[in-house]
Amino acid sequence: MQANVPSIAGRDGRIRAVIESVTPQVDGGRFAAKRIVGDLVEIQADCFADGHDAVAAVLHWRRAGEKDWKETPMEPVGNDRWRGCFAVDSPGVYEYRVAAWVDHFLSWRRDLARRDDPDDIRIAALVGAQLAEEAAQRAGAGDRDLLLDWAARLRAGTAPQGLKAIGLDQTFAALAARHADRRFACYSEPLRLVVDPPHAVFSSWYELFPRSAADEPGRHGTLRDVERRLPYVKRMGFDVLYLPPIHPIGRVNRKGRNNSLVAQPDDVGSPWAIGAAEGGHKAIHPELGTMDDFRSLVACARELGIRIALDIAFQCAPDHPYVQEHPEWFRKRPDGSVQYAENPPKKYQDIYPFDFESPDWQGLWQELLSVFRFWIDEGVTIFRVDNPHTKAFPFWEWCIAEIKKTHPETVFLSEAFTRPRVMHRLAKLGFTQSYTYFTWRNTKRELTEYFTELTRGPGAEYFRPNVWPNTPDILPEHLQYGGRPAFMARLVLAATLSASYGIYGPAFELMEHKPREPGSEEYLDSEKYQLRHWDLGREDSLADFIARVNRIRHEHPALQRNHSLRFLEVDNEHLLAYAKRDEEDVILTVVNLDYHHTQSGWVTLDPAEFGLDATAGYQMHELLTGARYLWHGNRNYVSLDPQRAPAHIFRLRRRVRREQDFDYFL
Amino acid sequence: MQANVPSIAGRDGRIRAVIESVTPQVDGGRFAAKRIVGDLVEIQADCFADGHDAVAAVLHWRRAGEKDWKETPMEPVGNDRWRGCFAVDSPGVYEYRVAAWVDHFLSWRRDLARRDDPDDIRIAALVGAQLAEEAAQRAGAGDRDLLLDWAARLRAGTAPQGLKAIGLDQTFAALAARHADRRFACYSEPLRLVVDPPHAVFSSWYELFPRSAADEPGRHGTLRDVERRLPYVKRMGFDVLYLPPIHPIGRVNRKGRNNSLVAQPDDVGSPWAIGAAEGGHKAIHPELGTMDDFRSLVACARELGIRIALDIAFQCAPDHPYVQEHPEWFRKRPDGSVQYAENPPKKYQDIYPFDFESPDWQGLWQELLSVFRFWIDEGVTIFRVDNPHTKAFPFWEWCIAEIKKTHPETVFLSEAFTRPRVMHRLAKLGFTQSYTYFTWRNTKRELTEYFTELTRGPGAEYFRPNVWPNTPDILPEHLQYGGRPAFMARLVLAATLSASYGIYGPAFELMEHKPREPGSEEYLDSEKYQLRHWDLGREDSLADFIARVNRIRHEHPALQRNHSLRFLEVDNEHLLAYAKRDEEDVILTVVNLDYHHTQSGWVTLDPAEFGLDATAGYQMHELLTGARYLWHGNRNYVSLDPQRAPAHIFRLRRRVRREQDFDYFL
Repeated sequence: MQANVPSIAGRDGRIRAVIESVTPQVDGGRFAAKRIVGDLVEIQADCFADGHDAVAAVLHWRRAGEKDWKETPMEPVGNDRWRGCFAVDSPGVYEYRVAAWVDHFLSWRRDLARRDDPDDIRIAALVGAQLAEEAAQRAGAGDRDLLLDWAARLRAGTAPQGLKAIGLDQTFAALAARHADRRFACYSEPLRLVVDPPHAVFSSWYELFPRSAADEPGRHGTLRDVERRLPYVKRMGFDVLYLPPIHPIGRVNRKGRNNSLVAQPDDVGSPWAIGAAEGGHKAIHPELGTMDDFRSLVACARELGIRIALDIAFQCAPDHPYVQEHPEWFRKRPDGSVQYAENPPKKYQDIYPFDFESPDWQGLWQELLSVFRFWIDEGVTIFRVDNPHTKAFPFWEWCIAEIKKTHPETVFLSEAFTRPRVMHRLAKLGFTQSYTYFTWRNTKRELTEYFTELTRGPGAEYFRPNVWPNTPDILPEHLQYGGRPAFMARLVLAATLSASYGIYGPAFELMEHKPREPGSEEYLDSEKYQLRHWDLGREDSLADFIARVNRIRHEHPALQRNHSLRFLEVDNEHLLAYAKRDEEDVILTVVNLDYHHTQSGWVTLDPAEFGLDATAGYQMHELLTGARYLWHGNRNYVSLDPQRAPAHIFRLRRRVRREQDFDYFL
Repeated sequence: MQANVPSIAGRDGRIRAVIESVTPQVDGGRFAAKRIVGDLVEIQADCFADGHDAVAAVLHWRRAGEKDWKETPMEPVGNDRWRGCFAVDSPGVYEYRVAAWVDHFLSWRRDLARRDDPDDIRIAALVGAQLAEEAAQRAGAGDRDLLLDWAARLRAGTAPQGLKAIGLDQTFAALAARHADRRFACYSEPLRLVVDPPHAVFSSWYELFPRSAADEPGRHGTLRDVERRLPYVKRMGFDVLYLPPIHPIGRVNRKGRNNSLVAQPDDVGSPWAIGAAEGGHKAIHPELGTMDDFRSLVACARELGIRIALDIAFQCAPDHPYVQEHPEWFRKRPDGSVQYAENPPKKYQDIYPFDFESPDWQGLWQELLSVFRFWIDEGVTIFRVDNPHTKAFPFWEWCIAEIKKTHPETVFLSEAFTRPRVMHRLAKLGFTQSYTYFTWRNTKRELTEYFTELTRGPGAEYFRPNVWPNTPDILPEHLQYGGRPAFMARLVLAATLSASYGIYGPAFELMEHKPREPGSEEYLDSEKYQLRHWDLGREDSLADFIARVNRIRHEHPALQRNHSLRFLEVDNEHLLAYAKRDEEDVILTVVNLDYHHTQSGWVTLDPAEFGLDATAGYQMHELLTGARYLWHGNRNYVSLDPQRAPAHIFRLRRRVRREQDFDYFL
């Protein structure tokens, strides 16, 4: 980073062009920006030089590890800023840089066009001939002859207008550009770009506890039960099925129901207390089934277009095999016992954290890496990483990069509900997606500010939100008291504000809303500590509504990316309105944030921003109900009764048909 | 810049703390931020680690070239941001960096305070003893014994409350902090800071043509005449006297009056057409006097507290000695003649630019550097550099750094009226001050936006404005038509919006306003091409008004820096109001931008922002007239008649005296 002023020796002071502010750029190039397969990656930079000479700039890119750069010209977009693009067609790490130079041929040509003094034109023709001859020396056989021929014509001519015509010939401009004098070109430092598969940005997650997946009450669910539940998940339109840890559960200091300190003999324990005699992070809890059952689940899901996401929680129950086999990976207390997790005065004696300051940190890193590799070999491509913010940052950067070397399609979701800098750091280090504060953002102002930051702040280059209305750890207050309208509204918000979202079900679609105690965000009788049986066929289930929302997401590219999000003005603090756009596809969502009363207001939108004629009407196709409304101009009325529908998802149709559009008009 | 992901080898993965976003920072550390002598430099950074362990951070700084860092603790200011300061007491280049580490002693102490379980406290005491013993190994003799003694007390105790008291002892916390375990500390890359003398920020410039300084009409002025004029300049309150080039003026292709292409025999030529038989950039035009005259001028000015600023214009008249002695420094035309400056179809045949792509660029750089050195040896410390944007960027970075190695007090003003990126680049490369677009910013919106950008945009770290209502090249339209009110208003704007400003006189104070032709910004009968005689004693001269404004600047620290500038709301588009503050000193300026009509309006200011009681009155002391006004609350009325006074400069006095304040009250 730090640059001393270059001395006069050991450099070429004739490099006059400079490059500044290359974008995208994260922390001065320390981290990579992110894109997905299929993107046209736009790179911008300030390129300029002293004086009035013309500057040329090109964009270079390559896959990391390749020696040769590919090149494409950049074009000026005003104020000394230049733009160039390259397409990325497969996941992996790319590099890009900008090259710029003072281009004497371009300056010469620009000046020639302005000259009118015949003597000046004749002198300029000789200068041009010289430039062409120099270019010829840099060219291969074919172009060389063309350039020399051109030079000869410039030298032979005498009539000013004729010389100007020869000099300004487009063909020769292209020829000269191909063999530009780049001796004094400058190059920006290469920057990295991580390209992920499309579902890194657009994904719909469903979380369930396999042990609660049995059809009949009281039986411990299995992976085979989960497999039978796949069509249900598919019907709702989810494409990622995320399972809490499926490993053997520790017996030492096991927690009981509702997080009680002492477990009863039949208590099943928390899946996050990982490891027991049966094995650790590479084993499957025997009551859930076998590795073959898991393989069958992954395969069956894949056929339905569903990816299985595993929860990787790097911590150990006291009886995890690691504790015996690798005592050096754990911190010891002065009495020789292993240091359990604590946040004084609270103690979590069922959990041993790894010591990332262990003298054998390298052994620890390699082992943790091997856990991911193990499950990748079993067909898993998505990992939801539990509390990554309590593991050393350098580990994540190394681990994710190592895995992506051979499996660049792997997706890592960071479950870090912590301070903003820490969450952002994890995203910069390589996590593909990140949990967010969405769960606690409720008012119009909170949602507007937060999603504006997420989609347009500097983090937009690397922090990809995955938003959840609920999780097994978080039953937010509005779901406790807001009733069905709250569940519907929060689902619509999650699914339309963010291209990636998820729900913890069946608690969500069955509107589970009782907290362990007032003021708590923990579920009463949480599945984290006990089996639950869910009646999926309940009449009031939101499954159909969820299916409708997910279908809308799948049918509308506007909802599959985040960058186009724009909030619209509504003259009612309870109504939140926003639009997303992907070329012709424009989706406008209005949500009533008051789950108890009808709220109405006027939505302001600039028709011109969506390519509409401000004086004509346009059709708003409400996709949840199928209703169609005619809107006009830039202010239109909406009214939402939460008991009927707490949200509208409109597709904006550019043009209302008129009489001329029908066959019978003629 | 570019970082590959670190491999597991050749590093220590136990370094868990990270440092991000160190400020000030210009272009990722490529360039230095700027401060002045006397500043307390505040450095901020995000410092954090994974998990819940406490982090400690310190600030390191040193003068460039020193081996050892000085150190001062940083304090957290919220949201993982830390702050530390160091004072700079002399000009030069400084370096700074941040160090941060996971501090187990701090974590232990924080946790101990929260513990209540007696067993936990006893165990914690043993952990603390261990930490103290480790710290003792890092400490020198005295501290070592204290730490060991402390450890012994922690090991010996049994009563939980007693152990807590020992553990939380402040003395020992300080002791442990002195010997913190920094094995796994991380360090930010060192960043550079350029520290200039105070007049790099606060300076009042006066420009005059020495050859027009003769008291009697018709005679060519001399440096001795300039010396006689110093008291006049001093009376107006200027502290920099800037002279256009004082070198021999070329005779070949000399320009005549009003820039005519053919000079008459008695035409004096443009001082920017530098060099003739008598010498070049290191010589003095014989008609101005001798080197001794120059030395006398510099010495005499210094006694009055005025610095002489020279104009360095790196270009040559055709008869400059360089053209014969160093033909390789100039580009040749195909006919063998030297390429003159041109901007087709315009030609400037009296000027030969240097070719910065010369094969002998190193020789050229060294010679140009020696020009600065020559004048520095003659006592010059301020250079106004003509058109630096038409010379290669790398030259400036090297040249300015070279000079500052031995003369860090040197000030370079960049005269680059060009595109924003280019102007900013020159400031980043090392220019101390920069000309601005002020001359063309006239409306309330233009001035507000531009000065907000200058004082609060990213450029504020390195781009220091020096604003000019006029220059010999620019007679702006508003001065042509706005009359005396325009001159007064523009002076007040320049002098109060910017800590550095200048005027080109006596044209300014004598309100010279005739353009060469309508639509031109060139002065009619410009001094650039002929002698002028100025009647300094004219009754309508603005000299006294200027003196008053400069006195206000000198008496009020608020006007001597830029960062505190805040614009205030006024409900009249013709009235511009803004405040500047330096601790207790608050200056509020209101300017009528309509030079023809009285304009009135209500100024909104938040009394609390200036430490005022919103319910009490406060006094506005008008410094131009001495008048005093009582204001109250946050909206107050102003009315400005441009014929009487187009501007108010108020000093805001916090408190209006009441009856209790007088002796006779008791």
